[in-house]
Amino acid sequence: MILEKIKKPNDIHKVSLEDFPRLAEEIRSFLIQSVSETGGHLASNLGVVELTLALHNVLDLPQDKLIWDVGHQAYTHKILTGRKDGFKDLRKEGGLSGFPKRNESNCDSFDTGHSSNSISAGLGYVRARDLMGEKYHVVSVIGDGALTGGMAYEALNNAAELKTNFIIIINDNNMSISKNVGGMSTYLSALRTAETYTGMKIGVTKTLKKIPHVGTAVVDTVRKTKSSIKQLIIPGMLFENMGLTYLGPVDGHNMRQMMKLFNEAKRVEGPVVVHVLTEKGRGYGPASSHPERFHGTGPFDIQSGRPLAAKTAPTYTDHFSGAICSLAEKNKKVVAITAAMPDGTGLNRFRKKFPERFFDVGIAEEHAVTFAAGMALGGMIPVFAVYSSFLQRGIDQILHDVCMQDLHVIFAIDRAGFVGADGETHHGCFDFSYLSMIPNMTVMAPKNGKELEEMLKFAVEELDGPCAIRYPKGSACTDMEECHEPLKKGRSEVITPGSEIAVLGVGSMVSVCQKVCEEIRNHKIAGATFVNVRFVKPLDTELLDRLSQNHSLLVTVEENVKSGGFGEHVSAYMEACHPEVRVLPLAIPDHFIEHGTVDRQRMKIGLNVQGILDAVEQSWENLVNNRK
Amino acid sequence: MILEKIKKPNDIHKVSLEDFPRLAEEIRSFLIQSVSETGGHLASNLGVVELTLALHNVLDLPQDKLIWDVGHQAYTHKILTGRKDGFKDLRKEGGLSGFPKRNESNCDSFDTGHSSNSISAGLGYVRARDLMGEKYHVVSVIGDGALTGGMAYEALNNAAELKTNFIIIINDNNMSISKNVGGMSTYLSALRTAETYTGMKIGVTKTLKKIPHVGTAVVDTVRKTKSSIKQLIIPGMLFENMGLTYLGPVDGHNMRQMMKLFNEAKRVEGPVVVHVLTEKGRGYGPASSHPERFHGTGPFDIQSGRPLAAKTAPTYTDHFSGAICSLAEKNKKVVAITAAMPDGTGLNRFRKKFPERFFDVGIAEEHAVTFAAGMALGGMIPVFAVYSSFLQRGIDQILHDVCMQDLHVIFAIDRAGFVGADGETHHGCFDFSYLSMIPNMTVMAPKNGKELEEMLKFAVEELDGPCAIRYPKGSACTDMEECHEPLKKGRSEVITPGSEIAVLGVGSMVSVCQKVCEEIRNHKIAGATFVNVRFVKPLDTELLDRLSQNHSLLVTVEENVKSGGFGEHVSAYMEACHPEVRVLPLAIPDHFIEHGTVDRQRMKIGLNVQGILDAVEQSWENLVNNRK
Repeated sequence: MILEKIKKPNDIHKVSLEDFPRLAEEIRSFLIQSVSETGGHLASNLGVVELTLALHNVLDLPQDKLIWDVGHQAYTHKILTGRKDGFKDLRKEGGLSGFPKRNESNCDSFDTGHSSNSISAGLGYVRARDLMGEKYHVVSVIGDGALTGGMAYEALNNAAELKTNFIIIINDNNMSISKNVGGMSTYLSALRTAETYTGMKIGVTKTLKKIPHVGTAVVDTVRKTKSSIKQLIIPGMLFENMGLTYLGPVDGHNMRQMMKLFNEAKRVEGPVVVHVLTEKGRGYGPASSHPERFHGTGPFDIQSGRPLAAKTAPTYTDHFSGAICSLAEKNKKVVAITAAMPDGTGLNRFRKKFPERFFDVGIAEEHAVTFAAGMALGGMIPVFAVYSSFLQRGIDQILHDVCMQDLHVIFAIDRAGFVGADGETHHGCFDFSYLSMIPNMTVMAPKNGKELEEMLKFAVEELDGPCAIRYPKGSACTDMEECHEPLKKGRSEVITPGSEIAVLGVGSMVSVCQKVCEEIRNHKIAGATFVNVRFVKPLDTELLDRLSQNHSLLVTVEENVKSGGFGEHVSAYMEACHPEVRVLPLAIPDHFIEHGTVDRQRMKIGLNVQGILDAVEQSWENLVNNRK
Repeated sequence: MILEKIKKPNDIHKVSLEDFPRLAEEIRSFLIQSVSETGGHLASNLGVVELTLALHNVLDLPQDKLIWDVGHQAYTHKILTGRKDGFKDLRKEGGLSGFPKRNESNCDSFDTGHSSNSISAGLGYVRARDLMGEKYHVVSVIGDGALTGGMAYEALNNAAELKTNFIIIINDNNMSISKNVGGMSTYLSALRTAETYTGMKIGVTKTLKKIPHVGTAVVDTVRKTKSSIKQLIIPGMLFENMGLTYLGPVDGHNMRQMMKLFNEAKRVEGPVVVHVLTEKGRGYGPASSHPERFHGTGPFDIQSGRPLAAKTAPTYTDHFSGAICSLAEKNKKVVAITAAMPDGTGLNRFRKKFPERFFDVGIAEEHAVTFAAGMALGGMIPVFAVYSSFLQRGIDQILHDVCMQDLHVIFAIDRAGFVGADGETHHGCFDFSYLSMIPNMTVMAPKNGKELEEMLKFAVEELDGPCAIRYPKGSACTDMEECHEPLKKGRSEVITPGSEIAVLGVGSMVSVCQKVCEEIRNHKIAGATFVNVRFVKPLDTELLDRLSQNHSLLVTVEENVKSGGFGEHVSAYMEACHPEVRVLPLAIPDHFIEHGTVDRQRMKIGLNVQGILDAVEQSWENLVNNRK
């Protein structure tokens, strides 16, 4: 096993080039075996084994800086930097993160998770390097999917002015998580079909760069070199026009060619785009035939590729998926938008049933929100299905383009609250705060899968301004399906009336609060009113007024940061109007929460039955003691 | 006067083409006269007089949809849609907005203010139009500056897939507010130097579009048509490569040529980019020589171009400008970043003194933030100077790229609170909320210009994580310069100790609160402690604990929305720890506030001395009554 020789960063430099193909195969086998046991990102990692080997071969880490966009393709990089043994605890609490993390290794130059930011981060390093008079290389590796994100373009536009070396590698597999979309994707596809790198192209590009601007002489040279006019115009002219040197395309599974090209790239004075063609899921049949399914996977059977866990109960995403199709069936104005996540958001069914009303805009949350605003003004009812943490990219657009004009745009916000194994970059812990601050916005959270369907129907049929429904990752809660008081804007649902203590649960926390209330009653601590909050905004002040009449303590429980969350709004209202009633706001504290299971993440901060119960008992005791 | 015939939308269709040049001159004279009296945006509006006339001539409003990016170039559009008489009250309370507003005219299709969103909004209209089976035209007019914003690219990328007509006009004056930057700008400049539209180019483009992909035959045709190989490669290939038809460039002051080209554009089946060359400030010497100064201007003397108002006292921007230069003088690691606002943010001086440490990244707040993160990791101390409302574009990057890695990046946030005449799109009323929710962030606000300088020094020299200093538009407060207790993280400054009532003012509200406290004492309502909050985050809980010992009422006053603001944090803390003390949080209520003067905006919502005093008296009275 060559892989066994790789114990620490730069051990790769001791491996002879002849052994690289064997090493690549060993890494691939290890990845397949390891991820089949722990789950994790597979297809993207199988695609970049050779690319990573080639990069590590030409770079000197940690001196040189290597930045992985999104970061879920950095497994080989982790193996090559001495973290192979950590893979048994991949994405588990205290174990290896699924993303680059500077606190794991000094070979990780930038913590990533969200898309399209690697060129910006890399350019920052480059400018600092030049000002400090240092000499290292900076390489940003960005997928063709991430290249649909606007900030990647902002960074390319800014990088064009650079006079010193900066290597941007386009890892082009013609996909993001799903099939890639848009003009840039079509353009890259055209480049793919051109013949791949053969050495001659470097010559052409170098010649092009030598001459101040694209003039007659250059093109004559090119025309003489190349017989096909297609290659004259196409190879990289889009990038060259922007002021970037373009090299490629090169076969991303041919290490010798890549290394030759990377070494060439290191010598370019200025920003250089290297276009590398890779195959997602390469070397493992099931992953290469179904890269979407093997983007992020649970443990699976290697032979068949089938997941080991039995199909779980319907998720919130499933409920959303069904509900939006029913609504669209009835109402032709309903349209659906995704930012490159038709699978994850559950819109695939909608896409199949209503292809003309489905819009995948690429990894482009900013555009998605304002596009929705335009559609609303054009007479449609747009539903933008998006992960909570990715919607952070569109806050200004929600505020400025949707809410300021009070437009009927619906945000179906998935992966809200803790997401488990993906960790801090992917938690959806801020949406109540950033949505509540915006005038005209309505913010809902359902107690179970059925209520999610009802809220979506309500949002489409009853509301006429901007609104958001946020729901967690994973199996939908099936408790309390018998409770379905009709929805009314800004009204909570009192599930069990009581006295003394009222527990107000929000969304994912409602079923937890139900058990807390049972315990409160069982332990005869006090009477307990149990409320499903439903609307984080507008606040149900009528209910709060009513509760103040026969309760001494209101407990609010939400899977959102405390600052700007539901609990603070309740605290402030009660403080102003009913100061005699105490409020105990339970929420996520002011620090980032690492990867692990959702249950453990909730437990660590006391958002489980026992934690909440302890807090309530403590508060109640203080309250009773103070009365004495 | 031809202009007098224009009373309502489409009156322009009654003007004969021969009279268009005269009409353009009349409009120009009117704009110069009118803006010289009221102040407003001038240079951008003078640049698009002919462009607007040409557009109105070929379009049928309000049936067709015309979307102005940013919107501060829509004055001629307002004149042509019957709003000429409104210009005497431009940007005044109850008067005409300086931006398109759907509630002013049904010819305004989309309310704008922020940059780079017009293509997204337009594409939304287009998709809705096609689904509804309607036939109108949609035109988005975007500046070359706005084209540096990532969401414009996201939208272009998405538009490329469109099969129906959508007209995108690039209003290219080689500037945003300041000189434009980046690769796209260089590319457009190259196009500018090519000969302008002559009719033949349309033919070329049409031929290119006819053939499935760019093949030999096309290029042969082009080569035969054009002698210069430069024009073969350059005209619009970047856009054509992305899948957009490119027409132009055309002289933006030649109405006949523009109309011909616009009519051609209307016939293209698919998205079409029309490249129009305009001159900012055209027709008025001072504005055309100093377009930056005449971007947004106060009243001025037409003859000399000099402002009528005497130079005011130093602004907060001036204080920042001086302070960052002093700090950079001492510390070579200090670098400054702007997103296309070197003038507005006060970085011009820094640019002149330290050109190698100054970075204008274009209208690209997302990129700016992550670029700063990269620089911090590379060893520098980046200061990103930005307007509060524009930083809303970078919230995800602040959270994900800066705060999650706890990097030493400083946000110098100008135009926080109300901004007056620009109105709701430009107020900086949300930053306390969106910054406080993020772990690791420190949030400061200075009481006067001097304290801003001290805070910046503190941020550079004493802090080592992410921090923000937010300060308002306009003349810096000079009160309380004798108070300068050294800054300590998370500690407020008690300016006047007292008892019973404590008034906690934040930033711009501190000097207002000083007067409130005087009134409280003068009127012998109660004793009054007067506090300069300084740190919105972390909360000075030590002070709150201390105040709770001899105060019954805490009043918080901030120029930020209530939801997620300082007052809510104090309310929640006091509710949890000192429920016997009442809190009165005064802040901006939950609705958008229109243009007008800052004083009126504050007054309308009670954030002036009298309003605050009334609220305090009322609260105090209730409190005393309740005790009885």
